[in-house]
Amino acid sequence: MNENFSTFHHLECASCGQRFAKTEPLNLCPLCHQPLFARYDLERAAQLIDRSSFAKRESGLWRFHEILPIERPENVISLGEGGTPLVKANRLAAELGFNNLYLKDESLNPTGSFKARGLSAAVSKAFELGIRKVALPTAGNAGGAAAAYAAKAGMKAFVAMPADTPAPFLIECEQCGAEVERIDGLISDCAKRVAEKMRQESGWFDLSTLKEPYRVEGKKTMAYELTEQFGWSLPDAIIYPTGGGTGLIGMWKAFHEMEQLGWIGKERPRMISVQAEGCAPIVEAFIQGHEKATPAKNAQTIALGLRVPGAVGDFLILRAIRESGGEAVAVSDDALMQGVRTLGSTEGIFAAPEGGATVAALQTLKETGILHENERIVLFITGGGAKYAELF
Amino acid sequence: MNENFSTFHHLECASCGQRFAKTEPLNLCPLCHQPLFARYDLERAAQLIDRSSFAKRESGLWRFHEILPIERPENVISLGEGGTPLVKANRLAAELGFNNLYLKDESLNPTGSFKARGLSAAVSKAFELGIRKVALPTAGNAGGAAAAYAAKAGMKAFVAMPADTPAPFLIECEQCGAEVERIDGLISDCAKRVAEKMRQESGWFDLSTLKEPYRVEGKKTMAYELTEQFGWSLPDAIIYPTGGGTGLIGMWKAFHEMEQLGWIGKERPRMISVQAEGCAPIVEAFIQGHEKATPAKNAQTIALGLRVPGAVGDFLILRAIRESGGEAVAVSDDALMQGVRTLGSTEGIFAAPEGGATVAALQTLKETGILHENERIVLFITGGGAKYAELF
Repeated sequence: MNENFSTFHHLECASCGQRFAKTEPLNLCPLCHQPLFARYDLERAAQLIDRSSFAKRESGLWRFHEILPIERPENVISLGEGGTPLVKANRLAAELGFNNLYLKDESLNPTGSFKARGLSAAVSKAFELGIRKVALPTAGNAGGAAAAYAAKAGMKAFVAMPADTPAPFLIECEQCGAEVERIDGLISDCAKRVAEKMRQESGWFDLSTLKEPYRVEGKKTMAYELTEQFGWSLPDAIIYPTGGGTGLIGMWKAFHEMEQLGWIGKERPRMISVQAEGCAPIVEAFIQGHEKATPAKNAQTIALGLRVPGAVGDFLILRAIRESGGEAVAVSDDALMQGVRTLGSTEGIFAAPEGGATVAALQTLKETGILHENERIVLFITGGGAKYAELF
Repeated sequence: MNENFSTFHHLECASCGQRFAKTEPLNLCPLCHQPLFARYDLERAAQLIDRSSFAKRESGLWRFHEILPIERPENVISLGEGGTPLVKANRLAAELGFNNLYLKDESLNPTGSFKARGLSAAVSKAFELGIRKVALPTAGNAGGAAAAYAAKAGMKAFVAMPADTPAPFLIECEQCGAEVERIDGLISDCAKRVAEKMRQESGWFDLSTLKEPYRVEGKKTMAYELTEQFGWSLPDAIIYPTGGGTGLIGMWKAFHEMEQLGWIGKERPRMISVQAEGCAPIVEAFIQGHEKATPAKNAQTIALGLRVPGAVGDFLILRAIRESGGEAVAVSDDALMQGVRTLGSTEGIFAAPEGGATVAALQTLKETGILHENERIVLFITGGGAKYAELF
């Protein structure tokens, strides 16, 4: 065992602060049922690596292994995730009246979305802890990623997805050997089915996002990567389409880690959360000044990744937005689908509807004066449009 | 202008050997109507770079810019192509009775396939030469890639694709702003429509593969990358699904360049071409010892990228296979679709049918004793399965 592969130290509840040993598989905090965070020995990490350590390493998520929770390299289950391009978007910028727009194109991950980051980390850690059967609810992309990484690890996967999810998401899971059930209802109903499955059959581990501590660790690498790509400086604003919000929470955690590592200062990008008008619980809670969100009723949007009525980490999303001086914006389905077309025709990226939502939000934020034309702004294109094609 | 950005020197006919200046847009050789190859000042390239030059550079195709044909960095039209993972496939290997299998997963390119490499190079060079309207026939993925890179460059794209191509290919082109026509017939009929369009309207440039000299230059980077990923050694065999065969031709060209650069010796991998039983002109010509292929009649296969009745570069494909001591194998549609399932369930890669064909071929090559269990073998997964989902 290479003791320097990871500086993972313990788990800590993001709400009550209680510590737990890293050696047992855990889901939510056993005391207060809130998400657990992985904590690292960052002093030791700062001795092992510095900002110049990564450029020499292979591209991708695992170049940051010292600050990821997998302890033995042979347990890393990888399909080449991370290392996605940061593209300067000059034609989109000209179209929308900005000068410094960037796209972080997460569609170049395995299985075509940012979900690969979280699931690579979570399946790897589950494998390391001896788990061989993983289950999760999904709006689509997380299921495909879980099925893929489970297959690579030789593990079983159970995926519950809404019955109205486009067929390619189902087929991807099936071709990767997962057991898939289509559920009449939303992702929240799928979560209930996963819980039921786990009561009926032993041995399944729940990989629902933020109900286990490691998907957020995979997602946090988006911030490490982005900061490295900007030469260890930070953009002024990050526009992030928010369903479960794990990426936003993870990036916020990563900025804190980077400050402790001495790699960045106290500055932060403004974290701007985008939701769909038909399902905007974070936007409502942000406007009303609430610490937690009220689950959306009759959630409906064509951007299926945003059709998440209630997020386990709602308080963490809202905290990050507020601490960063950010914003939360809702956009209509028409506007986000127009955003996809604008993105495709100006920048050549055929994005999933969630990516289009960032373009739509940018227009709103310009009109309301919240973002200015010379600010350095990153839009997260969380996945590709191919699996969603029937919606166009 | 950075004179060291590229060592591109001139164009040379792959058949008659005539040289042409690099400054004019050209399609086929004006004398004998065969493909043109870009030639470099490799002596100067060897002074500028060596095998250790690339690891420090950003991941992706353009790290090899000295041996690519674009002469000014500002003309590079990039969406983050190349730098795709080389995955050790231990579970697939165990399933098929091999010990050293690798997958080159080209689905992690922009637009989800290896076509991004060729079109990034070709659109960049067209842009550099002042062309602003590009047209091509496609079986699907080349159209999406052309539309995407043309959009990024602010160029117009015209794409002709068979009417039975699955809808996501069409939608991707349209969302990227291309003009698309669906043609009753095969890619060869689409090529006729492109020629007609060019007669009817001025200003269009034909980007059909090997009918212009630069798509093959983008594709050749698969060999540079692979060799770098193997630490500047070579695998024993490469299994490559062959429609137009540009990648195979490009890789073979790259191995010669690498030898001239002093980066590899005279050894070569055996180049193994895989086609579908319903459209196997290269396999037939190989078996019959012909230098050129007879176009397939009634071409039919579910692997649409392999439904290419006649390849412009047939003699170059056949030459590479023979010079390498390689093989050409045809597999059934049933076998290749089973290959997709095997790949998905063992390695977590949901491949397009062409990728499944390499798995099917590997089984045949094992049974016939052509490949041995300890050989180091690379399967090219040329694209992802998402756009093909309706075929499953």
